[in-house]
Amino acid sequence: MTRIEIGERIRRLQARLAESGMQAALLLMPVDIFYFTGTRQNSALWVPAEGKPVLLVRKSLVRAKAEGLIDDIRPFPSSKELSALLGREGDKVGMTFDAVPMAQHAWYSKVLPGRTFADVTMIVRELRSVKSSAEIEMLRHSAEMLVSIFFEVPTFLKTGMREVDLAAEVEYRLRRIGHEGYVRMRAFNQELFGGMVVSGGAASYGFFDGAVTGKGLSSASPQGASLDAIRENEPVLVDFAGVFNGYIIDMTRMFVIGRLDPELQRAFDVSLEIQEAVRRAMVPGAIGEEIYKQAAAMAEAAGLGCNFMGMPGEQSRFVGHGVGLELDELPLLAQGFGMPLQAGQVVAVEPKFVIPGKGAIGIENTFVVTEHGGERLTGLSDEVVEL
Amino acid sequence: MTRIEIGERIRRLQARLAESGMQAALLLMPVDIFYFTGTRQNSALWVPAEGKPVLLVRKSLVRAKAEGLIDDIRPFPSSKELSALLGREGDKVGMTFDAVPMAQHAWYSKVLPGRTFADVTMIVRELRSVKSSAEIEMLRHSAEMLVSIFFEVPTFLKTGMREVDLAAEVEYRLRRIGHEGYVRMRAFNQELFGGMVVSGGAASYGFFDGAVTGKGLSSASPQGASLDAIRENEPVLVDFAGVFNGYIIDMTRMFVIGRLDPELQRAFDVSLEIQEAVRRAMVPGAIGEEIYKQAAAMAEAAGLGCNFMGMPGEQSRFVGHGVGLELDELPLLAQGFGMPLQAGQVVAVEPKFVIPGKGAIGIENTFVVTEHGGERLTGLSDEVVEL
Repeated sequence: MTRIEIGERIRRLQARLAESGMQAALLLMPVDIFYFTGTRQNSALWVPAEGKPVLLVRKSLVRAKAEGLIDDIRPFPSSKELSALLGREGDKVGMTFDAVPMAQHAWYSKVLPGRTFADVTMIVRELRSVKSSAEIEMLRHSAEMLVSIFFEVPTFLKTGMREVDLAAEVEYRLRRIGHEGYVRMRAFNQELFGGMVVSGGAASYGFFDGAVTGKGLSSASPQGASLDAIRENEPVLVDFAGVFNGYIIDMTRMFVIGRLDPELQRAFDVSLEIQEAVRRAMVPGAIGEEIYKQAAAMAEAAGLGCNFMGMPGEQSRFVGHGVGLELDELPLLAQGFGMPLQAGQVVAVEPKFVIPGKGAIGIENTFVVTEHGGERLTGLSDEVVEL
Repeated sequence: MTRIEIGERIRRLQARLAESGMQAALLLMPVDIFYFTGTRQNSALWVPAEGKPVLLVRKSLVRAKAEGLIDDIRPFPSSKELSALLGREGDKVGMTFDAVPMAQHAWYSKVLPGRTFADVTMIVRELRSVKSSAEIEMLRHSAEMLVSIFFEVPTFLKTGMREVDLAAEVEYRLRRIGHEGYVRMRAFNQELFGGMVVSGGAASYGFFDGAVTGKGLSSASPQGASLDAIRENEPVLVDFAGVFNGYIIDMTRMFVIGRLDPELQRAFDVSLEIQEAVRRAMVPGAIGEEIYKQAAAMAEAAGLGCNFMGMPGEQSRFVGHGVGLELDELPLLAQGFGMPLQAGQVVAVEPKFVIPGKGAIGIENTFVVTEHGGERLTGLSDEVVEL
């Protein structure tokens, strides 16, 4: 990241604030602060619609100054000084209502009297969704790292190992090549550890807003790998997020020790057809909801409508999600998502099916929206790997 | 967990709601919902001050019914039905203002007209801080698991490996014995991946609300292990959270390949003295702030006041923190924490020093508050392991 790029990000935000009649934004989420300054230290970022941003740092000021790429980085002031520093009475100030807790809002309302707060969630998320060429290079690096470990899976996947053993092998290798581990998610009440390893016929119901959840290890962490042993001739779905330098890439591949059930193979073939149709449709101006509906229609036409994107009866209504600094960025290829796609948005496309008693199957790759359709970042053969 | 224990937890909450003049609590944080129901599926929990709680599930209803230990578990209703179901106009309804985002509050304010919302953060956190004997058994199990991996560190710690390699070895082994990976933190803008491996003289400034942060792998994840190689005669601080069945144990041990610098050894000895003084003081009725002040005074008396609990100038003002389903539970042994300790609270005590140019050093064990002082859960020798 460079000061020039950070400056451009700030200017784009300022233009949107001015358009929306806001005098400033007060950003409190670490990931948003990182995007607009280059540091995620514990701090608050004030961006006036006109003028220079200021980063107020609780901890660590030393590190924020070393990492930050804006000029005005200073210690978090007293409440009294805060009001003198941040705008004036009558200002309309943007805050990301999706993520800022009530207690934070209440405190800032008290120390910044006379300001009204307005929601800038969609402005911030939309700006962040369009990646610069530098960000796409970061994502390309994350993709190369993640692909390199997926490529090795056949060397350590064995009959009889438990899902959690396979997950541990993947996580260990990812970590050693620089995976940062923590997968940031924005949606309230979502959380993810690393990824999913789900095998066999016991694909599970779950809270996770994805197609496949996994049993997990307990009701406290009811997602991802379980203690179930991986058996011959059963599908093994490996879905991991690769986090390098903060940038998240998401991909899924299927493995089987032996032969895949023909019904699963057929569903897999349909997932590849859907992926290709979605990829072609990922051009600027396309509508995420229409792409999802096309994908769902293809699943329906293949007789797999009830199995598309989740357990029958609890299916998710999407086929792709933005990735970047968070796993659940904009845009969505989902029911109800009407914003036109923009060039430079990055989307994990994951058509998947769950066939109760047989297993979870599908594909996932991460693509950049371009004039020519999705440009793929995750360069590894899609085929089911038979061992 | 049993239905009886869940029933008792609900009754304790109901008593506190009644005392506070609230007609109900509406709990939205997954970890709170898990504590009061046994499931963390995506849902909202309504607990009236009198009568039966109801869990409204967005996803997965099937799994929430399988896991949940209360009677009334049903699909999340329409907005109109919600208002008929959850109390009435004029009700004062508790919500955890520390963690619930503004957008959630705004939505519930709209669909539940006429209710006012009040903060139940401290009620919920205080109830959760006192562990039942069943919970202490869970924590004991987590401690045994975590200790078993710390015990193995000398078998895989080698000169020249990078901090991240050592972290990967610890994480891999923890995962294979059932570590759930995801370390829940409650505080806004805190986050942690697994733990910290920090070696040598480069202990770092950082956002993390602890004594030691670590450089991490990038400014996006500025904490924990870095790419620095572990060298002879340098302190290696290994601080990990063990998460099993949702319950978190926290411990730290020191390793050195060769000999420890005498100044560091002396600081380490002081950390053991402080730990023992804190342990003795951990009786019901003791005040967290006073325990912290005693610890800080001991550090000061040893000439290490500027090094206690962080980089000089950016020190944390605590010496212990509650653990349980979150890493940052109540009580705190910290400046400003005036609530008396209660029997059954579980606290990670971590007197540590950072000596610039030499490194981070200290100890951490997790204790239960009892009439006889802290009862230790993490049973492994405290001594610096010299290899």
